[in-house]
Amino acid sequence: MSIEIKFPQNSVGLVETKFFDINDEIELESGVKFDSITIAYETYGELNETKDNAILLFHALTGDAHAAGYSSAEDKKPGWWDIMVGPGKTFDTNKYFVICSNMLGGCKGTTGPSSINPKTKKPYGVSFPVITIEDVVNVQKKLVDFLGINKLYSVAGGSMGGMQAMQWAISYPEMVSSVIVIASTSRLSAQGIAFNAVGRNAIISDVNWNNGNYYESSNAPDRGLSIARMVGHITYLCEEAMHKKFGRRFQNKDVPDFTFDVDFQVESYLQHQGEIFVDRFDANSYLYITKAVDYFDIQNKYNSLENAFSKTDAKFLVISFSSDWLFPSSQAKEIVNSLMKIQKDVSFCEIDSPCGHDAFLLEHEQQERIIKSFLNDIGGANE
Amino acid sequence: MSIEIKFPQNSVGLVETKFFDINDEIELESGVKFDSITIAYETYGELNETKDNAILLFHALTGDAHAAGYSSAEDKKPGWWDIMVGPGKTFDTNKYFVICSNMLGGCKGTTGPSSINPKTKKPYGVSFPVITIEDVVNVQKKLVDFLGINKLYSVAGGSMGGMQAMQWAISYPEMVSSVIVIASTSRLSAQGIAFNAVGRNAIISDVNWNNGNYYESSNAPDRGLSIARMVGHITYLCEEAMHKKFGRRFQNKDVPDFTFDVDFQVESYLQHQGEIFVDRFDANSYLYITKAVDYFDIQNKYNSLENAFSKTDAKFLVISFSSDWLFPSSQAKEIVNSLMKIQKDVSFCEIDSPCGHDAFLLEHEQQERIIKSFLNDIGGANE
Repeated sequence: MSIEIKFPQNSVGLVETKFFDINDEIELESGVKFDSITIAYETYGELNETKDNAILLFHALTGDAHAAGYSSAEDKKPGWWDIMVGPGKTFDTNKYFVICSNMLGGCKGTTGPSSINPKTKKPYGVSFPVITIEDVVNVQKKLVDFLGINKLYSVAGGSMGGMQAMQWAISYPEMVSSVIVIASTSRLSAQGIAFNAVGRNAIISDVNWNNGNYYESSNAPDRGLSIARMVGHITYLCEEAMHKKFGRRFQNKDVPDFTFDVDFQVESYLQHQGEIFVDRFDANSYLYITKAVDYFDIQNKYNSLENAFSKTDAKFLVISFSSDWLFPSSQAKEIVNSLMKIQKDVSFCEIDSPCGHDAFLLEHEQQERIIKSFLNDIGGANE
Repeated sequence: MSIEIKFPQNSVGLVETKFFDINDEIELESGVKFDSITIAYETYGELNETKDNAILLFHALTGDAHAAGYSSAEDKKPGWWDIMVGPGKTFDTNKYFVICSNMLGGCKGTTGPSSINPKTKKPYGVSFPVITIEDVVNVQKKLVDFLGINKLYSVAGGSMGGMQAMQWAISYPEMVSSVIVIASTSRLSAQGIAFNAVGRNAIISDVNWNNGNYYESSNAPDRGLSIARMVGHITYLCEEAMHKKFGRRFQNKDVPDFTFDVDFQVESYLQHQGEIFVDRFDANSYLYITKAVDYFDIQNKYNSLENAFSKTDAKFLVISFSSDWLFPSSQAKEIVNSLMKIQKDVSFCEIDSPCGHDAFLLEHEQQERIIKSFLNDIGGANE
């Protein structure tokens, strides 16, 4: 008797994270060389015969390769962008071969600071080299090569994922037909760097961080990582969203009780977010990934955005959200204006949303309409 | 031979922090009673014969009684609002008798968690009761009584100082002729509470905090307090101010060096602010004072702002700053609108400034013009 597993109809269903070992030498921007890197990835849908229907998705700060579907029959929660990836969905797996990999420096299967250094047989810890978004993309390129894909139908991501999408168009212009940049920026503001710096400081200040050597200890720098996450969550929501969600309501009471216990709902929410985060994320990875985000600055690196995008002929779709104050619309417009200035094909949409930066994970209906239409217009996919 | 000490001409010169012991029983909002409280205060200028030229100033989150002048001949830095207090300045000590006291719960001479509990002969630590802005004002009232003043010419403060100014008009309407509320709010937003919660979490998570018992240890929760301060500083500046001040410039270099040392100027600034703060502030005081700020909600406490202000006949001046996102102009306008609704005398000015919340400490020229004119119009001072 076979047991039928019931997932929602428009789900990609049961999925498996695969691993690809890159055994070529990879040199990072810092000059550090890796002899081998493992990359964790998932794919959804089928690669067509002409291999021109592949879409590469990128996760944001704390995501992973598991973008859609369920990892096991018991799995209650699907992948992080399941709302957007599946049969008939925005990234329609009936039409496209969708790929998502965990980024270099991450902690979900791809080589990162918590991985074992083959030379020392111990976790890298802070001996792991500082990485950049360009390094991350170079590693993804090896995966795309391995999958036998010469040209990607699209590259797409939100927040830090949008940075990777732009970097793909810059680093491998011949391999990218279209680029979808959501709630992202060509470079973080000083305020954005400041928030990341506070997060890193909180981790490094945790005595359990122990200069990055905590993997063999029973105490990880959970308090520090949790505080970093709390700071992050403030920036993912906006003032209006927080007000709507929590206001000044007390948690489980109507009046203050004059103690230092959690008083307000917003405190309870943040603390909860911090606490659950430490179970799924590595503090050192948080250090490396936020640093890569801080360093990302394609205006400065290529002297101008126009220069940065000069070699790509990809079609661009840039989406921002009205209440996003971390990566505000004004920064999205800089990207759009620079592309227009050099006669590139770019569409721009600012979605009116009260959800702040988090909107890219929540406002799927409006994104679906815009992205589906954009993808349909690219042409070239074997439908 | 006498040595002449040279201070700037418009300075109040050498000042001394005085101490007043309140030996009446004081009951806090929480119901906890104090038998005695010491209050540290400074005064500048002379109380006139009719005792009607006194202005009570309130410090913000981490200020103290030392608002103006120099504490010693060697003192290089004057009091925190020296730019506004002195002969001929905004709060003109040739005309007014200016009083500033350290708040209850503080760490600069007024009874707070670092003070010795007379009953145990040990510092209070977290046995200190949770305080509110109303409690703070009730303690100040005892000082004003002691100084023999029946009616204050004005009460004035920025940020949390503005909360105290409003509370004075509410708690002691017969004692207040005018109220100056700068960069303040009738209640913190959910986002404001969230930032304070992160700061408190950082302190409490520091192993050296030790449940508040660190006064006799050689290790104080400096890392946690420093992180709390870094978070605070992000909210005191605005994105524009940070951009102008630091942009994405590196600290002492032109290119990233791919390490976790301080890279960007904004990181260096924040870290410096955190580091110098721990030398002048007590972590437990930070917990108590931010909690008092979170609790402050005169809309909810008195059912409406109109009800809250119903008994006062004071003239109000409300000032906000265009780029202040911690206590935004919209919140100042709520106060103004409620006062207008009940036919109170209120002036409002939104000062166009790129300095964020910090503007109340920096934009003295515009404030001077507005506040001087407001104070002149009150009348009643013996000029």
